[in-house]
Amino acid sequence: MSRNGIRNFAVGLSLALLAGSSGSAQQSGGAAAERNVRQERLWLTLEKLGEFGKNPEGGVSRVGFTEEDLAGRAYVMGLMREAGLEVRVDAAGNIFGRRAGRENLPVLLFGSHIDSVPHGGNFDGDVGSLSAIEVIRALGEHKVTTRHPLEVVIWSNEEGGRYYSGLFGSSAAAGILPAEVAGRKDEKGETLGNWLARMGGVGARIAEAKIAPGRVAGYVELHIEQGATLDEAKTPIGVVQGIVGISLRYCTVVGFANHAGTTPMNRRRDALAAAARAVLALREEVRAEPGRQVGTVGELKLEPGASNVIPGRVVFSVELRDLDADKIARIGERIQRRLEIIGKEENVAIACTEADLHRPALTAPAFQEAIRASAREAGLATMDLPSGAGHDAQNVARFAPVGMIFVPSRGGISHSPLEFTPPEAVANGAEVLYRAVLRLDGVLDK
Amino acid sequence: MSRNGIRNFAVGLSLALLAGSSGSAQQSGGAAAERNVRQERLWLTLEKLGEFGKNPEGGVSRVGFTEEDLAGRAYVMGLMREAGLEVRVDAAGNIFGRRAGRENLPVLLFGSHIDSVPHGGNFDGDVGSLSAIEVIRALGEHKVTTRHPLEVVIWSNEEGGRYYSGLFGSSAAAGILPAEVAGRKDEKGETLGNWLARMGGVGARIAEAKIAPGRVAGYVELHIEQGATLDEAKTPIGVVQGIVGISLRYCTVVGFANHAGTTPMNRRRDALAAAARAVLALREEVRAEPGRQVGTVGELKLEPGASNVIPGRVVFSVELRDLDADKIARIGERIQRRLEIIGKEENVAIACTEADLHRPALTAPAFQEAIRASAREAGLATMDLPSGAGHDAQNVARFAPVGMIFVPSRGGISHSPLEFTPPEAVANGAEVLYRAVLRLDGVLDK
Repeated sequence: MSRNGIRNFAVGLSLALLAGSSGSAQQSGGAAAERNVRQERLWLTLEKLGEFGKNPEGGVSRVGFTEEDLAGRAYVMGLMREAGLEVRVDAAGNIFGRRAGRENLPVLLFGSHIDSVPHGGNFDGDVGSLSAIEVIRALGEHKVTTRHPLEVVIWSNEEGGRYYSGLFGSSAAAGILPAEVAGRKDEKGETLGNWLARMGGVGARIAEAKIAPGRVAGYVELHIEQGATLDEAKTPIGVVQGIVGISLRYCTVVGFANHAGTTPMNRRRDALAAAARAVLALREEVRAEPGRQVGTVGELKLEPGASNVIPGRVVFSVELRDLDADKIARIGERIQRRLEIIGKEENVAIACTEADLHRPALTAPAFQEAIRASAREAGLATMDLPSGAGHDAQNVARFAPVGMIFVPSRGGISHSPLEFTPPEAVANGAEVLYRAVLRLDGVLDK
Repeated sequence: MSRNGIRNFAVGLSLALLAGSSGSAQQSGGAAAERNVRQERLWLTLEKLGEFGKNPEGGVSRVGFTEEDLAGRAYVMGLMREAGLEVRVDAAGNIFGRRAGRENLPVLLFGSHIDSVPHGGNFDGDVGSLSAIEVIRALGEHKVTTRHPLEVVIWSNEEGGRYYSGLFGSSAAAGILPAEVAGRKDEKGETLGNWLARMGGVGARIAEAKIAPGRVAGYVELHIEQGATLDEAKTPIGVVQGIVGISLRYCTVVGFANHAGTTPMNRRRDALAAAARAVLALREEVRAEPGRQVGTVGELKLEPGASNVIPGRVVFSVELRDLDADKIARIGERIQRRLEIIGKEENVAIACTEADLHRPALTAPAFQEAIRASAREAGLATMDLPSGAGHDAQNVARFAPVGMIFVPSRGGISHSPLEFTPPEAVANGAEVLYRAVLRLDGVLDK
């Protein structure tokens, strides 16, 4: 069956929302087309998943490798089986649910994660994960078969709450986890390997979770934006151009810790005054050229840190992000020159570490176009934008072409109980995911 | 015996140093006059005291209420008894050594402290304490009697290393210690009262250590400058105008902690950027008028403090010092206005606590003049200057007139193993103390 001309089975709330739709899936204008996914059903699973690790103040704490995470995974695996998926867990705890394809082709993969930061929200990861399962349910209802086998994936420990800095499961798939990771212990002495065993993984075999290039035809991830661009522009669908590169370095200012009472103002070598100038110089240099690049000093620690002692030493982080690695390097060099001037003028030494650089991960143009066309078909406006946050898609991009769909985050708030994306906006994303998967199934020749 | 025409008994090193002196104690020119105190003997006691709590890297850790402090106190009490003083310890652990006077007059008090900061030097406190004892030895050698009874005092826990923030013993003498202080426990659960008992004090009777106005005719403290003013001016004696007032407040900047990757530069409410502007504004406002006032941001803490999160909250200290309380208030108000502007421009809230104000403690003009005249008599140039650091003298000023003599600190370094004042400079201070005590004994009429 083709991906067009599919009947709409939406009921209840989604029926009301669809009341103004024209009924033509081909339509590309402003009105909503018929939906293949069912908004209310999807929303109910989002609400149900939010019960696992629910916090009194709202939102969830469903940190990877905790009891709450295990409970949420069990719920999601149940949904996957109900939708007819064949579920397996790889050595790194990633959950895969497979739906057979008509042809002998590599897998078309889509999904996200369900773990959260501590005191996080109900949308980061959950929207993409549960929408992927809704897509499977809708395909079943519409009796759609695909050329490629489809797999829904729930990556383990995306937020990096425990044992690892983040993107754990997709790092295993990309083969970039350190060998010793399964032996790492938490504050209670419990190993990551032990958690993996409880999740159906095998710490000793994490290397086997690596996915070789060619095994996956492509990967699509739906996610909330975690920024305010779409919300402010009132644009329902973001076509992600790529996941920004991140340059992180630490700079140390060494002045001289001296008595705050006996050291005249003109004899000071105040490491904090120099660091304050550096914080402002960074902001100026990031703003000095047009574009969406950002720069942040998020950490700053001083020594000795007493009200009556001039700070002798300050260490601060310098983080730069952009889709363009050259731009990151250029701004970094300008900041470095500013730091040299500040060091001389303040009579302090400023030295920075080499930048720890995560290169930008660009999405495949064919995937961007599939998402754009799918949204157009569904009557939804799109905007191209970068992802300022990291996503599992950036690891998948190491072994397969990827695309990402964003839906708006209200007020741009994320990693917070206040995180919110309305039911219709979630369903818009799921609908575009449904259509993009079918579109890619049609156009990808391997 | 009068305080003039005293023979000089200096030998060895001090003889060599005095080779160029004229022999006239009345001389007020550039050449050194005959010394009443003995430089080599004084220096040897400084070296010996430095054995208690000595650190491998140099200097001492002789923190108040530690075994090292107890050992140093025992050594100093021995010196006091050898010099003929009648030694007693008050309830707060202050050591007093008394030498009788000819008339029924209040006590003329002089001394300092012997406790140190952790990893401190051999001069802060020690110079004034051991010079006071040398003055007693010299008075004995020269068979000088005084009208007033003299007392050498060694104040307990001046540096505030344990249990209390500083100036412990002189705070007891001023009657400003909190009632519960003796019950305070250290990390091992040992009470301050227990240490006091080991020192000869009585925790339950700390209130009795209070010295009533009228019991002390005056107090003179010799101390190293702990700043670089005298050292750079190559001036041997500082006449302290007073101990600066200190205004301390804490300011809190509340912005919004948001994702460092997804929040555009023009949508940020960055608490650290605002705090950085505040740090620089403080420095500008302190420098905006002539004078010796100083202002310092010595503490600064941010939340959440992750490289990938825009700081949402920053707390920093604002400390201002000057001899003139009005000037402190005026600069504080200007800083407050700057903070209001920064808050508006950065779209953050900035609120500061009420200033915790230690008012300036001025020295008595008659004491300043006695010190100035004594130095002139000894052929030593003087400079009037404020004390930017706190001293026990500021507490004594609450119940008696005070004077302070400064000697140079090499490079202005203090609270460090590198703290150094050469033997001759120490002896210069002791000589001025000797002469000032006798001069005040002559002029004070009560």
